[in-house]
Amino acid sequence: MSKPKTAITPTRDENYSEWYQQVIAGADLAETSPVRGCMIIRPWGYTLWENMQRALDDMFKATGHQNAYFPLFIPLSFLQKEAAHVEGFAKECAVVTHHRLEAGPDGKLVPTGELEEPLVVRPTSETIIGDAFARWVQSYRDLPLLINQWANVVRWEMRTRLFLRTTEFLWQEGHTAHATREEAIEETMRMLDVYADFAESWMAVPVIKGEKTAGERFPGAERTYSIEAMMQDRKALQAGTSHFLGQNFARASNIQFLGADGTQQHAWTTSWGVSTRLIGGLIMAHSDDDGFVLPPRLAPQHVVIIPIFRSDDEKARVLEYCRKVAAELRAQRFQDAPVRVLVDERDERGGEKVWQWVRKGVPLRLEIGPRDLEKDAVFAGRRDRAPKDKQGVPRAEFVAQVGATLQSIQDGLLARAKAFRKEHTRRIDNRDEFYAFFTTEREEEGKPTPIHGGFAMTHFSGEVELEKKIKDDLSVTVRCIPLEKSEPGTCPFTGKPSAQRVVWAKAY
Amino acid sequence: MSKPKTAITPTRDENYSEWYQQVIAGADLAETSPVRGCMIIRPWGYTLWENMQRALDDMFKATGHQNAYFPLFIPLSFLQKEAAHVEGFAKECAVVTHHRLEAGPDGKLVPTGELEEPLVVRPTSETIIGDAFARWVQSYRDLPLLINQWANVVRWEMRTRLFLRTTEFLWQEGHTAHATREEAIEETMRMLDVYADFAESWMAVPVIKGEKTAGERFPGAERTYSIEAMMQDRKALQAGTSHFLGQNFARASNIQFLGADGTQQHAWTTSWGVSTRLIGGLIMAHSDDDGFVLPPRLAPQHVVIIPIFRSDDEKARVLEYCRKVAAELRAQRFQDAPVRVLVDERDERGGEKVWQWVRKGVPLRLEIGPRDLEKDAVFAGRRDRAPKDKQGVPRAEFVAQVGATLQSIQDGLLARAKAFRKEHTRRIDNRDEFYAFFTTEREEEGKPTPIHGGFAMTHFSGEVELEKKIKDDLSVTVRCIPLEKSEPGTCPFTGKPSAQRVVWAKAY
Repeated sequence: MSKPKTAITPTRDENYSEWYQQVIAGADLAETSPVRGCMIIRPWGYTLWENMQRALDDMFKATGHQNAYFPLFIPLSFLQKEAAHVEGFAKECAVVTHHRLEAGPDGKLVPTGELEEPLVVRPTSETIIGDAFARWVQSYRDLPLLINQWANVVRWEMRTRLFLRTTEFLWQEGHTAHATREEAIEETMRMLDVYADFAESWMAVPVIKGEKTAGERFPGAERTYSIEAMMQDRKALQAGTSHFLGQNFARASNIQFLGADGTQQHAWTTSWGVSTRLIGGLIMAHSDDDGFVLPPRLAPQHVVIIPIFRSDDEKARVLEYCRKVAAELRAQRFQDAPVRVLVDERDERGGEKVWQWVRKGVPLRLEIGPRDLEKDAVFAGRRDRAPKDKQGVPRAEFVAQVGATLQSIQDGLLARAKAFRKEHTRRIDNRDEFYAFFTTEREEEGKPTPIHGGFAMTHFSGEVELEKKIKDDLSVTVRCIPLEKSEPGTCPFTGKPSAQRVVWAKAY
Repeated sequence: MSKPKTAITPTRDENYSEWYQQVIAGADLAETSPVRGCMIIRPWGYTLWENMQRALDDMFKATGHQNAYFPLFIPLSFLQKEAAHVEGFAKECAVVTHHRLEAGPDGKLVPTGELEEPLVVRPTSETIIGDAFARWVQSYRDLPLLINQWANVVRWEMRTRLFLRTTEFLWQEGHTAHATREEAIEETMRMLDVYADFAESWMAVPVIKGEKTAGERFPGAERTYSIEAMMQDRKALQAGTSHFLGQNFARASNIQFLGADGTQQHAWTTSWGVSTRLIGGLIMAHSDDDGFVLPPRLAPQHVVIIPIFRSDDEKARVLEYCRKVAAELRAQRFQDAPVRVLVDERDERGGEKVWQWVRKGVPLRLEIGPRDLEKDAVFAGRRDRAPKDKQGVPRAEFVAQVGATLQSIQDGLLARAKAFRKEHTRRIDNRDEFYAFFTTEREEEGKPTPIHGGFAMTHFSGEVELEKKIKDDLSVTVRCIPLEKSEPGTCPFTGKPSAQRVVWAKAY
């Protein structure tokens, strides 16, 4: 059998990592920049981010949060307020040391105006926001304080990869303060639920909610929770985190309040965040060998209409018809909002346009030429099916059904991702099977490259040393201790009792 | 006559500059941070910024622009590509020189990991975006390229003031590339119009559109246009700028394209921006001695309902009624969107709440107590009238009229600002009158502090030296050469012919 032609080279099976880069390039989502590790997010990728932002922001506001904005720079002395925190971030901080440039002896500019205290470009904002909270919180009446910030942050990463790990990235960071431990934990879990809901309902990516082990905790947190998703190479992606910070940062920043009982107390704080990394997860969850596949709820355009014509006379008639169909589609609704439609009137060949929109992942493509116009029909392709699987559909029928069709694509992507995860998740009860799961290469039909692993659900007695050894042996770690508890059992590595199974996987 | 009690101390007349700070503090809009010159934008101020962003973003998209995101950092070598550009920004650049922190001998953290090439925190992004444009633009078919970025930028200012001049600020920067000079100029003027439309229609701030003189041009631009607004101390505020960059940056960044005629050409570029400075202008245009006054179209809340009660029994009945009124109001529309309503259920005294919302500038306040409930009425105050000027209105009438009432406040603010500007704008035809206009102190009714000046419209023969002398003498500069041309005439300073009048004023 000859190899099928695909719009992306290499395919997932040939070279997953290179395929990922090519999907991004082919969809014009982002590109590397001349600044080490920083990316340029192109309009198609940025619109996707805007759609994600809007959905998340609505969810944050519906749960009582307000947006604010805090300084980009953090004085060195602030970062040092919480010992574990500074330890965790010191090795990856961009540091501003000067505030002007002057021509040196050779005419080249050199930094001058040295700062008395260097400033760190925020890697996260617990300390600078904590300082503000200390001023804003006086009495229990000022609590809870529920703040979110949309911002850029910088972590000097040595190995970067578009969206997944970049020196600068865009994110939101929620920061809240509460009167009691219980309320802060409740908030931590509420926002984890919001993230899980967003991942499943909007991104069509199923996730496992769970707690991180001590080694993977946020620096300074008492507990860290995450949502973990399975990518198509069966690795895990941590897609969002929610931290219960206890009173650690409240003590470091002196966030105190006068309680209802008249005593002075430290507040209990949380923080939680998701970033442009979500876009990397979205790409790796749904895309195929023809490029990006967008879940309709987040797609910059739901339907792209490609006019097909030869003569100028045909062009005029076809364009008029396309614009009419577009207007009809825009009057339809999908998920309580108007359907988003683009007529691609660019001066380029129709066939080339079709493949461009396939690579960009638009849920529905319509090709409309003179013959479709005569039949009052459209020639429709769905991005969740093969590019050549296209059908003529009467115009009125396509228009009336467009909302339902988009919903079926959205539902189908989630169902497919769930089935994939289920297929590659195994409950394992002995050590050898565990090691084999992550090391044995298995041939699968149509997959030239041997593949292995996935999510292994085992009991675990929790030793840090054991987790480290398994990481050294297999590059596999505990992704999380799921909130949805399994039955208790016995750790296959130590034979000790274990309260519940945990999720092991290789991870991004 | 005894001095009237005001919610803000000092009043505008007593100390305008301190009044400005107190309006910001009283409305919880923003505050200074521990980081030199950087501000914290509090939720009330940030929601206002979000509303501004949404309105502007819709206007940018309606004129064909797409958002994208470029790196925060600019390599030093990039900034140097355009000589005038680097000259203009070198003195105010935050420079990143290191990428990690390590404990020094005394245990304190010091920057380590020196960068080979220092990075500048973007003061503006012409050079880094130009570099991307050079890759994206190959043929005339790729033009026009119409990009906008919402971002933070840093300019190391020595004297800072909340919103008006801060080291870090939030803004949008449009960057476009075109095939011809004419198209680029057209774009420059189109975006100036968008800014003027936004200022008048949304902010209720009238502006003069005009070109800047050579001395006030953006570093590297061929022409700079601005919108200029009059504040209540009669100074001018430059509220937005649009630059025609000619081929300067296209040459510096090598943005070239193959023309339809087969020749290789440099593109023509523009850039344009508005920032959180707009909030400073909004404050100074409308606020009064009781605090902030919000134009309804940008107000985070249109109506705040303050329940008034004494007993628990009253509280339950009053709250139920307030929530019902709120629901009815939310079903009404103002400017094609639902009316935004907050019921202030916080556990605080009603009287204190009323003054808080006056200081925050909410367009309509409703106080509702047991007696209003019996009469099925509301007790309503408008922020554009005196705080004590409140009226009982039947509930149904208030609800049915709320959209029209908000519109009348919006229109009234613009009319008042226009009348104020007209009153303090003078056509001047001789030098002595000009000097007197900006130096004579005049007593005005009810104003204990003498005030002077405003906008002076004179003919001007354009000498750079003359403009400099007037600036030295009076701290007065040409704000702009209005697009709306006056009759030609004679320069009162030189006696030479002049094509049109220009606007002189003191400026922020």
